[in-house]
Amino acid sequence: MASNIDSSPDLPDPEPQATARRRIKLIVAYDGSGFHGWQKQEPPNEAPLRTVQGEIESALRRLLGEPISMLGASRTDAGVHARGQVAQFDAVCRVPIRRLAEALTSRLAPDIDIVSAEEVSDDFDCISDVKTKQYRYRIHNSPRRPLERRQSVFHGWVDLDVQRMIEAAPRFVGTHDMVGLASAKHGRTTTVRTIHACSVVHENDEIIITVEGSGFLYNQVRIMAGTLFEIGRGRLAPDIIDRIYAEKNRRLAGATLPPEGLCLEWIGY
Amino acid sequence: MASNIDSSPDLPDPEPQATARRRIKLIVAYDGSGFHGWQKQEPPNEAPLRTVQGEIESALRRLLGEPISMLGASRTDAGVHARGQVAQFDAVCRVPIRRLAEALTSRLAPDIDIVSAEEVSDDFDCISDVKTKQYRYRIHNSPRRPLERRQSVFHGWVDLDVQRMIEAAPRFVGTHDMVGLASAKHGRTTTVRTIHACSVVHENDEIIITVEGSGFLYNQVRIMAGTLFEIGRGRLAPDIIDRIYAEKNRRLAGATLPPEGLCLEWIGY
Repeated sequence: MASNIDSSPDLPDPEPQATARRRIKLIVAYDGSGFHGWQKQEPPNEAPLRTVQGEIESALRRLLGEPISMLGASRTDAGVHARGQVAQFDAVCRVPIRRLAEALTSRLAPDIDIVSAEEVSDDFDCISDVKTKQYRYRIHNSPRRPLERRQSVFHGWVDLDVQRMIEAAPRFVGTHDMVGLASAKHGRTTTVRTIHACSVVHENDEIIITVEGSGFLYNQVRIMAGTLFEIGRGRLAPDIIDRIYAEKNRRLAGATLPPEGLCLEWIGY
Repeated sequence: MASNIDSSPDLPDPEPQATARRRIKLIVAYDGSGFHGWQKQEPPNEAPLRTVQGEIESALRRLLGEPISMLGASRTDAGVHARGQVAQFDAVCRVPIRRLAEALTSRLAPDIDIVSAEEVSDDFDCISDVKTKQYRYRIHNSPRRPLERRQSVFHGWVDLDVQRMIEAAPRFVGTHDMVGLASAKHGRTTTVRTIHACSVVHENDEIIITVEGSGFLYNQVRIMAGTLFEIGRGRLAPDIIDRIYAEKNRRLAGATLPPEGLCLEWIGY
């Protein structure tokens, strides 16, 4: 019987650009509890740490047959989750783009999910083109332990005046020097950012803080959540937010809440 | 200044039976993903495996200052969860009963939660007094990976006719020889059990199977879930349930679904 293999050149090429170098944008979700954060870490003379970037680059190399260097929009910390991280890379992608997300996910451990993959223009830049980022911080406010969710919420069982938190949250909105809300090692030359929205909702045993802004300094959302937590407890007054902006003093704000409650929800371009 | 310590014998004793041996009933919740099941396992010449019973007995010994042997109502398998496991032990409990659950939880890792502790009569038996047990099996039926919940649902992404599963589930109800729904190593002399209720609900991406019965054989709920899964896929007809009961043949039923989807919800006495 004749093989069909030789007839394939006669078929129309389903992906005409399959041999061209293209820029691919990924939307990536992950459970951060098993990772040393997003960014690749390869300490000299030691095994590389397990990071989201490292895992995806390694799967891309296996899938595409060439070393891939990927850029991520947000360098999330160890233990921080994402539903909508954005990453990009340039490659000769012989896998049809419409199948790339699934092909990549199937080569990854169960704590990463490639939500989508699409070709973007060569001048797309997933870092400098960001318009908005949305983060959520979840506080499990109950004496019962959050068993199954213990790595995706912060178990903060103290008496909280949630109405006070709800009313205080919008005070964060505006364009300000955010240095009073950042950990010292933020490493940025400009610390002015815009917060578009900040809200608190109470759902069953969870208090969910949602923040949208142009960008965030190191640990900023966790410090904002910690400040709202202290406002809810009654240890800080709501107008502390105005004072933090005015005095640019980190010590006025609440503690940095732990990473497990934080999730990067989406990034708008 | 005089110390108040010596004056305590004059105060009324808040727990008159603090020196008597009492029977205590615990309700226990746990995330089973980090355990080799409920039952203590101490292989000779090896470190004991991490089990729920082992962890709680060890915390009880530290709290009460004597070795405690605890009995559990259900020997859940590795990876299986519980919201309402019941356990009992006899001890001279110098800790006030009303504080025991919290004191014990605080001595346990974050994947166990002692929901309640109460004194029960000496003839209470958490195994033979069981009237009803309720289990749930959760199927995550979506192409998206269940990231945060990957250890508490089964990721079964196939085309399922959920209406067919909903209609088939009540066929399990009744008093029958359940041997066709049990793994071979069930080790029971009587295999007749009563299923009081079996239902399927569809909530967002999840298909939740709820089963209540007088008791269950080894792997029975996971095999029932596997049978409903095959009915939803169209590989088995709904009347296979009647045939499994009539022919007592394990091979007629679906596969044993993985442990992570299963949770012991509550036990009625």
